[in-house]
Amino acid sequence: MVPSKDPTQTVPTDPQEQQEERPVSSLLIVIAMQAEALPLVSKFNLSEDQDSPFPKCVPWIRYHGKYKDLEINIVIPGKDAMFGVDSVGTVSAALVTYASVQALKPDIVLNVGTAGGFKVKGACVGDVYLATDIAFHDRRIPIPVFDQYGVRSRTTISTPNLVKELGFKVGKLSTGDSLDMSSQDEELIRANETTIKDMEGAAIAYVTDLFSVPTIFVKAITDVVDGEKPTAEEFLENLSTVALAMEVAVTQVVDFINGKRLSDL
Amino acid sequence: MVPSKDPTQTVPTDPQEQQEERPVSSLLIVIAMQAEALPLVSKFNLSEDQDSPFPKCVPWIRYHGKYKDLEINIVIPGKDAMFGVDSVGTVSAALVTYASVQALKPDIVLNVGTAGGFKVKGACVGDVYLATDIAFHDRRIPIPVFDQYGVRSRTTISTPNLVKELGFKVGKLSTGDSLDMSSQDEELIRANETTIKDMEGAAIAYVTDLFSVPTIFVKAITDVVDGEKPTAEEFLENLSTVALAMEVAVTQVVDFINGKRLSDL
Repeated sequence: MVPSKDPTQTVPTDPQEQQEERPVSSLLIVIAMQAEALPLVSKFNLSEDQDSPFPKCVPWIRYHGKYKDLEINIVIPGKDAMFGVDSVGTVSAALVTYASVQALKPDIVLNVGTAGGFKVKGACVGDVYLATDIAFHDRRIPIPVFDQYGVRSRTTISTPNLVKELGFKVGKLSTGDSLDMSSQDEELIRANETTIKDMEGAAIAYVTDLFSVPTIFVKAITDVVDGEKPTAEEFLENLSTVALAMEVAVTQVVDFINGKRLSDL
Repeated sequence: MVPSKDPTQTVPTDPQEQQEERPVSSLLIVIAMQAEALPLVSKFNLSEDQDSPFPKCVPWIRYHGKYKDLEINIVIPGKDAMFGVDSVGTVSAALVTYASVQALKPDIVLNVGTAGGFKVKGACVGDVYLATDIAFHDRRIPIPVFDQYGVRSRTTISTPNLVKELGFKVGKLSTGDSLDMSSQDEELIRANETTIKDMEGAAIAYVTDLFSVPTIFVKAITDVVDGEKPTAEEFLENLSTVALAMEVAVTQVVDFINGKRLSDL
């Protein structure tokens, strides 16, 4: 069986439909780590939700407010109840995205976060990328068709004007639940022609695909995966600096989206 | 930071609370593959939900009905819209569990499925195990505390009477999104002292922990991971036979639960 549809490609192509399309009004930003989110919460002057749309037992946090013509929601999976660290990775990212898309019905989702980059593909620390494609690199199921389901490689929504105007780098994103990279991960990462490696993107895409919500992936490079420094060390060293670069980039993206229709992006 | 609480251990220990505890009345069974679920759907004479509690856009299926004194729901993540195969793995298992626990508020969750077993720990094809512990083996985050969050090793609910009466084998369960096993997976699997390897359990436990719903993991061995045959081949060869053994075992578990309080299990 081959992929039969591409549910992220929801930008209307029919001219009449385009005429009727209204500007984006509601934006959901999904971010895995609080340290990545807080500069943006402050930048867009958002407030933490006191009456959250989420069940009481989950650690997820929603920040919301009005910025220009946009209703902006930033959601994070919050701190793990057992370990006190940010709930990074695919499972919690998928869950908070699912609950948020259901409750908030956004016009568009932005997944924003730090990521590893491959210098062999031109990535440097501090670069900000928009993902053109997305896939998993740690779901190996060597049974016909299940193998493709595992990788789930797909093209993201096309935003040619955004890319052209803001001049971000573009590249393929690959997702896995480990910060490091095993030799098996590396094989799939090479097969996916990956420039950017993160721990949530493809899981968020899985959920927004289910709901046919167009999704843009903005990833700032904290570490060079194929460089000399260990990933964990480089990631921690660069996290706060790159979070600031990310703030600037995401503000540019949000300002660009403001007032525009999906088909203008 | 060390684990500060164990939210699956919700069996009341206070004598007064125990007196007031009512028998289990609502049971949610989460199963990844339709072929694993259908014998049980038939056995418990359940009907497919025509008015599902899930959003229209998801492929999840709920089967439900009354069996003895129990309201039984079986949920499966259903077929992937792009590839037409069962939506196996942690992300879709977590999502369907989240939505089901929210909508159906079960007293107890059973995660039932086929799994790989380690012969070095005594597992043979056709064995049925109850998991005593659960962990992830493919979430390597080599940063202090994040490393423990990644593995998320924990004890499952204690069911000494069930284990004693039904005579199932018991062992530690480890979850990852790949059917095969990389050398890095193997390292963590050894560290977790794993007897059983599956693709959903720890993700389902993550969700039921959030909601403090006690969860029992019933796993039937389709392949010997440390044996000579390739996992995929052995899995496909044994899937239908082992699904029948699983039907017998799960019926025994459900019959045992019927009429009992959580603290009797």
